[in-house]
Amino acid sequence: MSTNTKAYAAPSATEPLGPFGLQRREPGPHDVQIEILYCGVCHSDLHQVCNEWKNSIYPMVPGHEIVGRVTKVGDHVKGFQVGDLAGIGCFVDSCRECENCKAGIEQYCLQGMTGTYNAYERDGKTPTYGGYSTQIVVDEKYTLKVSPKLPLEGVAPLLCAGITTYSPLRHWKIGPGHKVAVLGLGGLGHMGVKFASSFGAEVTMLSTSPSKEADAKRLGAHHFALTTDRAVMKSLRGTFDFILDTVSAPHDFPAFLRLLKTNGVHICVGAPPEPASIPAFSLLANRISLAGSNIGGIRETQEMLDYCAEHNIISDVEVINIQDINEAYEKLLKGQVKYRFVIDIASLKGA
Amino acid sequence: MSTNTKAYAAPSATEPLGPFGLQRREPGPHDVQIEILYCGVCHSDLHQVCNEWKNSIYPMVPGHEIVGRVTKVGDHVKGFQVGDLAGIGCFVDSCRECENCKAGIEQYCLQGMTGTYNAYERDGKTPTYGGYSTQIVVDEKYTLKVSPKLPLEGVAPLLCAGITTYSPLRHWKIGPGHKVAVLGLGGLGHMGVKFASSFGAEVTMLSTSPSKEADAKRLGAHHFALTTDRAVMKSLRGTFDFILDTVSAPHDFPAFLRLLKTNGVHICVGAPPEPASIPAFSLLANRISLAGSNIGGIRETQEMLDYCAEHNIISDVEVINIQDINEAYEKLLKGQVKYRFVIDIASLKGA
Repeated sequence: MSTNTKAYAAPSATEPLGPFGLQRREPGPHDVQIEILYCGVCHSDLHQVCNEWKNSIYPMVPGHEIVGRVTKVGDHVKGFQVGDLAGIGCFVDSCRECENCKAGIEQYCLQGMTGTYNAYERDGKTPTYGGYSTQIVVDEKYTLKVSPKLPLEGVAPLLCAGITTYSPLRHWKIGPGHKVAVLGLGGLGHMGVKFASSFGAEVTMLSTSPSKEADAKRLGAHHFALTTDRAVMKSLRGTFDFILDTVSAPHDFPAFLRLLKTNGVHICVGAPPEPASIPAFSLLANRISLAGSNIGGIRETQEMLDYCAEHNIISDVEVINIQDINEAYEKLLKGQVKYRFVIDIASLKGA
Repeated sequence: MSTNTKAYAAPSATEPLGPFGLQRREPGPHDVQIEILYCGVCHSDLHQVCNEWKNSIYPMVPGHEIVGRVTKVGDHVKGFQVGDLAGIGCFVDSCRECENCKAGIEQYCLQGMTGTYNAYERDGKTPTYGGYSTQIVVDEKYTLKVSPKLPLEGVAPLLCAGITTYSPLRHWKIGPGHKVAVLGLGGLGHMGVKFASSFGAEVTMLSTSPSKEADAKRLGAHHFALTTDRAVMKSLRGTFDFILDTVSAPHDFPAFLRLLKTNGVHICVGAPPEPASIPAFSLLANRISLAGSNIGGIRETQEMLDYCAEHNIISDVEVINIQDINEAYEKLLKGQVKYRFVIDIASLKGA
């Protein structure tokens, strides 16, 4: 038994996305069936649609920033009722048995988490399809509770852009007394600024675009620094405790490592296509760490959503119809979005 | 007033070291005058003699692993008496006023520490000359106490190779319950193995030379793994909490980053000539950190020397005469030393 579901899919790496029909399973005893209301458009959707990471499965239904309303629950589901709001992030399952799953950091599952799309279920053969679709069925353990307090379209991107920046800020215990630079003002960067300032850190936006200064400050940055200005960069040497690096384009890491204080940490959450080039002295000279962080676990994602509801934090979004998705990808490539496209899935239902 | 001192110096980047006469200052009120007994030969002596770091000052008297006996003290010196054993490490001064100096991490002095050689005193013009010499005069704040319990020739390398490995192991609180890989078995690596196992960690030596297995285990390693064996490397994926990377030659960082557990830290204490090439996913996928560490502060160096005296830890050394220094450099280049050459400065006194 399964359910016909409308979706938009990429048939291959070179074709535009278009209408696609897929089957969702009937909810099992532990499953939650969700009518999708909004789905964010993450840069990684584009990377994967274009097979930039060389692991794409087609047809691909992208989307891992999903919010919607529960329409059915399995017999053993305890945490959700029909009518509840719910969210699905970057993964819909994991091995549940390894030390990382047991520790609640399923994103680092030693067997590999099950991506919300462009992956296979634990059976190794059933493809997963993401949130550019009208409904989804997920085990309640991998389903998040969403507060009705916040506008849902602004909540959707919290499921990836939000947790990707929230998790490292929490992991490195960033807060009052810390000077934090956020590198890059896009989908990730704008959430990084919101969270870091909300946590009490002194936040500097580092950007190549002078036009972003006003917006950075509106989002919560205390300072703005133009990375193309050599005098500015020199004046900032040894300034920051942390750099939250959200940039996915190639960039000059040593120039940023110099901005850190002794014991400073440069945290990468973006994934540039080229390896970073790191001279040993950039790390040795000041006991610097270059670290990476990848989304967050279910427990921490729920904590983040609850924090956002309490502190009235959402993503700044531009709502689009599913029919505009290919055009949105083009704008995304050019950085022409403030700061996240979110698909109104109502546009797919009528399609 | 100053003192004639016999030394060996490099006249330029391309000439061998030979006899050189220099003047040491008369001890000021806070100074300690030390008759040098032994001086270790650090790989960085060779880097700097050859001007590989492009900052060499000639004539250069290398040597920053110095032990000897106090022969005179200034009027205000409180911690040393004539006849005491004393040590000098990699720096002989720092600004004393910045937050790092005040925090006892003078090696990260924001004004730059004053190197024991190939540097200028705080006056910006008096060159510093190192331990390939019969005596040295240093402020007592930058002078270490050396226990008479241990053979002095084995203590000398603790002042650089010792503290360089001790400091990061302490900073990252490495001990019981941790699996630690030490990468490279040379001057630094052999001390890394001794300290890591002494601190209670489970230690694996990673090396390209099968011939080093027996020695690694004698030094305290619990396991030995050949990094050239692909099956071995694959079997070690996700194994270590920390890698202490002592290698100064170019190497394949992603191959080692894969051996770390989630949250693992790869600590660089060697300085390869080429920048490390680090793909973002090597860090993101498992919340990995790539960090650097540089020697240690005076307080921690004293703590390390005291720890070594208490736990009977010294460096494994080959004692040479100063007249053999150029030949020793050639052997050092080929890795033909177990594990540190130490100059018996008596050979210089008679020269």
